[in-house]
Amino acid sequence: MENLVTLDMIRDASEALRGVAEVTPMVTSTRLGKNLYIKSENLQKTGSFKIRGAYNKIRQLSPEEASHGVIACSAGNHAQGVALSATRLGIRSVICMPEGAPILKVEATRGYGAEVVLVPGVYDDAAREAERLSKEKGYTFAHPFNDPFVIAGQGSIGLEILEQVPDVDQVIVPIGGGGLISGVACALKSMRPNIKVIGVQAATVPSMFVSVRNGVITTVKDGPTIADGIHVLTPGDLTFDMVQKYVDEVVTVSEDEIAAAIVALLEGPKTVAEGAGATTVAAYLFKKVDTSLKTVALVSGGNVDITTLSRIITKGLQKTGRIVQLRTKLVDKAGNLAQLLSCIADNGANVLEIDHEREDAKTEVNSCVVSLTLETRDREHVLKLRQDMESRGYSLLY
Amino acid sequence: MENLVTLDMIRDASEALRGVAEVTPMVTSTRLGKNLYIKSENLQKTGSFKIRGAYNKIRQLSPEEASHGVIACSAGNHAQGVALSATRLGIRSVICMPEGAPILKVEATRGYGAEVVLVPGVYDDAAREAERLSKEKGYTFAHPFNDPFVIAGQGSIGLEILEQVPDVDQVIVPIGGGGLISGVACALKSMRPNIKVIGVQAATVPSMFVSVRNGVITTVKDGPTIADGIHVLTPGDLTFDMVQKYVDEVVTVSEDEIAAAIVALLEGPKTVAEGAGATTVAAYLFKKVDTSLKTVALVSGGNVDITTLSRIITKGLQKTGRIVQLRTKLVDKAGNLAQLLSCIADNGANVLEIDHEREDAKTEVNSCVVSLTLETRDREHVLKLRQDMESRGYSLLY
Repeated sequence: MENLVTLDMIRDASEALRGVAEVTPMVTSTRLGKNLYIKSENLQKTGSFKIRGAYNKIRQLSPEEASHGVIACSAGNHAQGVALSATRLGIRSVICMPEGAPILKVEATRGYGAEVVLVPGVYDDAAREAERLSKEKGYTFAHPFNDPFVIAGQGSIGLEILEQVPDVDQVIVPIGGGGLISGVACALKSMRPNIKVIGVQAATVPSMFVSVRNGVITTVKDGPTIADGIHVLTPGDLTFDMVQKYVDEVVTVSEDEIAAAIVALLEGPKTVAEGAGATTVAAYLFKKVDTSLKTVALVSGGNVDITTLSRIITKGLQKTGRIVQLRTKLVDKAGNLAQLLSCIADNGANVLEIDHEREDAKTEVNSCVVSLTLETRDREHVLKLRQDMESRGYSLLY
Repeated sequence: MENLVTLDMIRDASEALRGVAEVTPMVTSTRLGKNLYIKSENLQKTGSFKIRGAYNKIRQLSPEEASHGVIACSAGNHAQGVALSATRLGIRSVICMPEGAPILKVEATRGYGAEVVLVPGVYDDAAREAERLSKEKGYTFAHPFNDPFVIAGQGSIGLEILEQVPDVDQVIVPIGGGGLISGVACALKSMRPNIKVIGVQAATVPSMFVSVRNGVITTVKDGPTIADGIHVLTPGDLTFDMVQKYVDEVVTVSEDEIAAAIVALLEGPKTVAEGAGATTVAAYLFKKVDTSLKTVALVSGGNVDITTLSRIITKGLQKTGRIVQLRTKLVDKAGNLAQLLSCIADNGANVLEIDHEREDAKTEVNSCVVSLTLETRDREHVLKLRQDMESRGYSLLY
């Protein structure tokens, strides 16, 4: 296949994006590791990298196309990237969103100047409606990833990485449809072929991972992930080819690992990453890549739904043994609860929540079940605590 | 009173801090307001501004004093600032912390090279022990705020603000003991007397606010606050004099306002602020200051205990009407719950949690209580929803 995306196109996109997209900061944190640099696209305008590709696509429209406007389908970052880009270029934008999309994302997309069409059903219904409207009204369809101009726009991040960390050895990039990594890898490998480029996917939706392994584009079955920004079941043909050509390896991370990385980013560099964005840091922290190399992890976005962030935090703290939930049975007699609590205190764990139920149908009449949520140091600390509790005769229900 | 802290001392501190403390970024976010700039000391080394004053103090020690080491008392940011500063200067540090201090803060302080002494009891007990050890072992006591060198170190932030936003009209600074604002206000007013400097305190612990109003140092009674970094009941004498001299006004913010500001910082600039750090943004967002002025809000730190962050998020979302909890009574009959839920859907609110209790002692036998946690747009949306529910005959229990 000929090169549909070239280094020159990426350089051209980079020029065009000056003053439109930010050159986002490269951040370090001793807590995360001294070889690790975070490229903070979560601090990009609209909260993700998507504005780069969207703007680069929309600025290429002919005056005739521009007069009709653009349409896109997205429940998330692409919507905001297209909306702001079109508004900046004085072009009308229409975004189809599934009806259940979070209120705040709908409001944000409207706030950037788009007309939002809420489509009953799920993402696929919204996509069909966008296609229909595109044909009916002559809007140009802005694909979220499988488009040379979109890919070239995302590639501008690769050039920035080389300016900010000239001696980088390895770059980790999230993969959904593959537009971001296609552009970034093309820029990096064209300029410095020895740099390792690693892609990351959620283990529950490993479409590019499986496609690369099979050597053919493969649709995976749907799975749940907190990384909604990379929740794509089928890679594009253009992006699949570019990943095969430029990317050294694709790895996967679990949901718990993603949650733990979100927590690590909140605590270390004090920055908010969405699930998709945190996958790269998860791959580094959980050693899916060679951590001895000077590494840039691309944190692609920060638009995590704040009402779910607290649940993710809890999950992340559990994964690293910083919070543990234990249940044990006690004979319901004065002093027994106090004794249990001093056992916990002896082990240096802090009680965050305690629930003492008398009427659990599963327990005998004169006993009760105590559920504890404890703050602990790490997994080793949890293990020692469990052992000590068991050696003192407490049987742990989980 | 003669000037114990001068602009020259602040300039000298600023020089000495080069390569030790970061020049932290000045961040904007359209979501927070176009006149507002965030001076991000939450991204400072150790997660707060405290390293500036601590380093500037410890570097002044005589070789004799340095050979004995320093001691401090703190359950938080000052501990980490002293520990890292002393380690950087090759000086021994001992930090007394109350026994109940969060495990992670203890670990972080040790990680920066300090010897931690856990003292049974509360903060005051740890402070007494630090004083005792200081006398017994000849350690120099590093006061967290009431010290000219500490104040001069914090003042270096004022110089950075003037470099980063040369035409700033107004600067908002949190006040606990008053060391930070004393230094910053001295720098700002010495260079540009027309800049307004506003101090902020938690309304539950308004020690400097009350002291300024009374014209005399006043100890306030203890109150709860999520802004633990400014939880100080009595201002220092040096800082009280400097606030009277340099600060235009002291305002207070409520706990809900602080929580809402933490959420706004997570969502807008995607940054993690601790309660004390977010007070300045709260003062701006809730219009305790003139928001028509070009304003810098100093976000002093980001060391919020992550296990409590989720609770703060919920509080902050409630304050701005983004989450609402409602309870209503229903006759326990097939179809009634479905009807309630379609009323909620008609109003465009999303159900996050629902709890349907049949056996509440407070309700009649054939009725039940439904508790709903809903995602809403803002306070106006909540009001309209409540009105519509009541007009359809649902009586709201709160």
